[in-house]
Order: sequence, then structure tokens, then C-alpha cells
Amino acid sequence: MPAALTIAIDAMSGDRGPATLVPATLDLLAENGDLSVVLVGRPDAIEPHLARHRGAIRDRVRVQEAPDVVAMDDPPAEALRRKRKASMRVAIDLLRDGEVHACVSAGNTGALMAIARFVLKMLPGVDRPAIISAIPAVGGHTHMLDLGANSSCTARQLCEFAVMGSVVATDVHGLERPRIGLLNIGTEEIKGNDTLKLAHQWLRAAALNYVGFVEGNDIMSGAVDVVVTDGFTGNVSLKTIEGAARMLADTTRRELGRNLRNRMLALAARPLLRDVAARLDPGRYNGASLVGLNGIVIKSHGGADGPAFANAVKTAILEARKGVPTQIGRLLADQPFLEQAV
Amino acid sequence: MPAALTIAIDAMSGDRGPATLVPATLDLLAENGDLSVVLVGRPDAIEPHLARHRGAIRDRVRVQEAPDVVAMDDPPAEALRRKRKASMRVAIDLLRDGEVHACVSAGNTGALMAIARFVLKMLPGVDRPAIISAIPAVGGHTHMLDLGANSSCTARQLCEFAVMGSVVATDVHGLERPRIGLLNIGTEEIKGNDTLKLAHQWLRAAALNYVGFVEGNDIMSGAVDVVVTDGFTGNVSLKTIEGAARMLADTTRRELGRNLRNRMLALAARPLLRDVAARLDPGRYNGASLVGLNGIVIKSHGGADGPAFANAVKTAILEARKGVPTQIGRLLADQPFLEQAV
Repeated sequence: MPAALTIAIDAMSGDRGPATLVPATLDLLAENGDLSVVLVGRPDAIEPHLARHRGAIRDRVRVQEAPDVVAMDDPPAEALRRKRKASMRVAIDLLRDGEVHACVSAGNTGALMAIARFVLKMLPGVDRPAIISAIPAVGGHTHMLDLGANSSCTARQLCEFAVMGSVVATDVHGLERPRIGLLNIGTEEIKGNDTLKLAHQWLRAAALNYVGFVEGNDIMSGAVDVVVTDGFTGNVSLKTIEGAARMLADTTRRELGRNLRNRMLALAARPLLRDVAARLDPGRYNGASLVGLNGIVIKSHGGADGPAFANAVKTAILEARKGVPTQIGRLLADQPFLEQAV
Repeated sequence: MPAALTIAIDAMSGDRGPATLVPATLDLLAENGDLSVVLVGRPDAIEPHLARHRGAIRDRVRVQEAPDVVAMDDPPAEALRRKRKASMRVAIDLLRDGEVHACVSAGNTGALMAIARFVLKMLPGVDRPAIISAIPAVGGHTHMLDLGANSSCTARQLCEFAVMGSVVATDVHGLERPRIGLLNIGTEEIKGNDTLKLAHQWLRAAALNYVGFVEGNDIMSGAVDVVVTDGFTGNVSLKTIEGAARMLADTTRRELGRNLRNRMLALAARPLLRDVAARLDPGRYNGASLVGLNGIVIKSHGGADGPAFANAVKTAILEARKGVPTQIGRLLADQPFLEQAV
């Protein structure tokens, strides 16, 4: 490999394309002297955005041709079968072949998951991959998984997610013994369905800092560092939070416009409101990881702007430096729940 | 019945007791000339709070003795079996016997649901009761159900919930053809599990204004008036919103205290912040309905203060005036999904 750390960037997928993704990526090269990137896509679309970068930084950029693109609405199975020359696929192939340490895409989540599973395979002992992301919380953030890869899960899969979440919280965010909670509709032992009760029992015996059941209000309360749930509930919760943030912005805007006193206040309070909004901004937390795979794949929001996409690439850099898949494999190896059926 | 409208109040349950619940209820008698109330509980605990009310209003208050109380942590089955003289049970017995038009309790939700199901029975054609409440949304509010009565649901049950939600949105909030959405992790037909796909198919054929699948962000977006989901997902979403509101309040408070400029702003902006907070305050929306039962039962938050408890009683008044259970029975009667297995 040409440098200590190489990241493949799917430069074509997502809503904004190379005009946003390429400059955001290149800015990170200046900050990270040991980083090099492979921009994957159509050279005629990528190269115009490289023009302003010359010399040392330009030497750490390679363009890998990929003529096709996975569309945001391509069915995952179709994308997997038909689009073998798409930028997303070529970027993941580079990862499988050991030419890069991680890969970042702002494309179609379902297609990215299907292609990554097929090309990279799962880590030993992991049944299904999961999507994990940081969620803003009181005093910092929480990590939640699964955010939508598996709409229903077995107890064993939930236990695997707990291991993956623990490693990401430790390696990417420096938490020493991340507190892990299992999402339920009550914290008493008797609550929830049989799958949750079983997972609860196994997690209590696991080599993890498992604190027990948590409820929806704990996702953002700071009570735990990792919230484990199935992909249906995780996806609904995440989108509920996005909706709450949007409604709040809307309400504040309406209230601020309501009368002259409020309009003057709005002017004076603008920097403050900006600080609060930034705290809730999902872009600050952009960069969901596909975990459980034999390789590091980071999913950016499709509509991410430059700074948000840069955050996704930063997550890839961190996970690559720490070797997250290796750490997941290690923490998983000794867990007693591996004796249980998948 | 002594007046046009009589409501039974479980004056003993909840975290605050008669000192909060009784004055909040009595204030509503002044506003509603045709209303009378039955306060259920220990007379020695209730009567001191009646002292300041005399004359015409006092004539519309009756105290019904009930020596026992359902505790917030009583298991529902125990409460049902052992506490036949609890204020909650006696209030629901009054409703069954036709002595009141509706009943309000701030007690243990599980016990209230179990007792109400046992004593009142279900409406014909309804398989399971559900909990519905208004949720703040852009431009107004959404109604969501089930919020926790049934942790998993069949397709037929979800269709019944859609009917109940439609009636509550129409009768309690005056919406003419409430738009109904089914909560899923995507809006495409192929998303979700088999139960959701089946419910989606039946709802499209139902005599309802069904608009299709919605996602978590639509709970507060104002895109629909009723969000239908199972009790697990509904409960997690509701508590996620509560957590988001609390985290927002915390962030704002921290930002406001951060420096002198912000502290001065905080002083000036206090009325504005109060307006925004009130908009998100669940207390403003207090009063969840237990729907599908043969009678009107309203559940207040256990910790509700006076104004919030009064909102729960107002919901009971509205549902009683409109005859919500009768309307649900009517709208349900002709639905094609009734031919399907429960």
C-alpha cells in the first residue's frame, strides 16, 4: 500500500456526487499526513474537482475507474447482480483485495449492505451485519444498533450486536467499559417478548458491561453508551428523533416570527440557536458503520453536505486505525452466548 | 343519571393523589355546567380538598367510597384478582353499571388495562384494546396507537387500531377525513414484515382515509393525522420523543448558561423559550385513551400536575359527548377486513 492508511471513496453515489464528495475528502488529506485515498467512479466526473489540489496532496490521490453507478432506488438484489462495474461495487472489491483499509459510500443503504455482505463476508461467529451510528445524547452521544439492516432479530443476533456496539464505542469514541442497554418497553425482567428476555439472560452472562433493559427515553438520556435493538425498532427510533428535531426547528422558527419582540430576539439569539441546532444536527454524527463484516464499510447520508461527508470519512479513518473488525472478532471469540443457536 | 354528563375520577391512584387530582377536577365543573363527577377513593383523603367548593358546584360532586388503592408497581394480574375495592376498580365498575359516562385514572397502566378489559369487555369485532394519545406535530398533532397495550400485533389488530384512531381523530379533534398511516421502515410496498404487508393490503381496501406506509419522521411531520403501529414500536417511539424533548431542554439550558451573552439572552428569551417548551410539553397532550373497550377509560400520566390532569378529564368529557365507543362500533361494522382471521 502506498501510505499507512488508504480509504476508498465511492465518489459517484448519493444525492450530491463528486462536486461535494471529492473536495470534502481532499480536505482531510491535509489534516492526515499518512492518509491516501482512492476515488472510485467516472474519471471525467471526478478529475475536474481535483484541479485545485497539486503537489504532495495530489500524490496521495488515485482515481479508480468505475463506469456505472448504483441508483438510490435500485433494488439491492438487482444492484448486486447487475452492477458489477458500479463505483460502490468497485470500492468494496478494492477493500476485499486488500488495496484499501476501509471504504465510504453515500449510496443506497440496502445495496451497500447486500454488496458488502456478498463481497466481504461476515466475521467468524457473526450471523448478520448491523448498522450502527452515534445519536446525540445528554452530555455526549449514544451508539445505537441495528438501525435497519435486519427488521427482525433473534436473541443470539442481539447479543452479537451488543459486542459490535461495545467495540465501536470503545475504539471509535474511547469509552473504556461502554455501558450496554437492551431496548425494551419497560425495565422490569418480566417486560418484552421471549426474544428480548432470552437476549437479556445471555447478555447478563456475557463478558460485556451490560446494564440491562432500557426504554426509548434512554436513547438520548446518557444513561447508557450503547443501545441494542432490532433493525425495525432502531430505524423507527432514529427517524423519530430526526422528525422531532425538524419539528422543533419549525416550532422555534414560527415562534420567533410571531411578533416584533420575538423577531428582535431571533436576531440577538441567532448564534445561540445555531449552537443548539448544531448539537442536534445529524450531520455532526454522519457516518453509520456497517458492522459484523470482514472489512470496514461506512455509510454516509445520501444528502450529506461536504462537512457531513468528511465526518463519515473520519469515522472510516478511526475504525481503520483501530482495526474495528479485528477487535469485534476478539471480543466475540470468548462470549458464552456463542454456544447458543443462531 | 344526575346530570347530562357524569365522569368517575379515580382520586387515589397516581403519584400525586387527591391533593392534586381533586382541585383540578373541580375547576372543570365551573367551566362545564352540565358536568357532574364521582370522586372515587377514601373519603377522609378526598373531603378536605372539597372544602373550598360550596353551593351549586358542590352539588355536582359525589364521593364514592373505595378503601383500597392499586399501587404503581402492582402486577396487573394481582391488581385484577385481589384489589376489588380499589378506587380504580370501583370507578370502572361505576362505568360498567351505567352510573357514569367515562372514567379517568392516573394509576398503573397495566392494571387499568387489565381491569378495564375484564370489567367492560371489548366492543364487538374488536380483538384487543389499544392505547392512543395525541403527539405534538408540525402544525398541530398526530394521534398514535398502540402505545404499549400489545407488544406484538396481528394484521387484523392493526386494521382495528386504524378504525379506532380514525374515530378518535374525528370525534375528539374534529378532523373530517383523518389521514391514516401505517408505521414502517420505508414507504415502498416491499418494505416491512409480512404482518405489515398484509395490514397495508387490507387497509387499502378499508373504508378509511388510509394513505399508506409512513416512517418514524412522519410521527411529528404533520403528514398524517393517525399513526398506526404495534405497542412495542409505539411505546419506544413515544418515549424516544420524550427523551429528545428532555435532551433539548438540557442542551438549551447548558448553552444559555455558557457565557454572559447567553445568560442575558436567556433572561430576554424566557417567554419565548416557555412558548416553545409548552408546544413540546407532553402534559399539554395528557390523556391517553384506552380504545376498543365497551366504555370510555382515560389514562392520565402518573405524575401529571393539576393542569395536565385536567386535560385528561377534558378528553374524557369530549369522548363522552361524542360517544366514541359507539362511533368505533359503527365505523368497524362495515370494514371488509372483518372477514379476515384475527
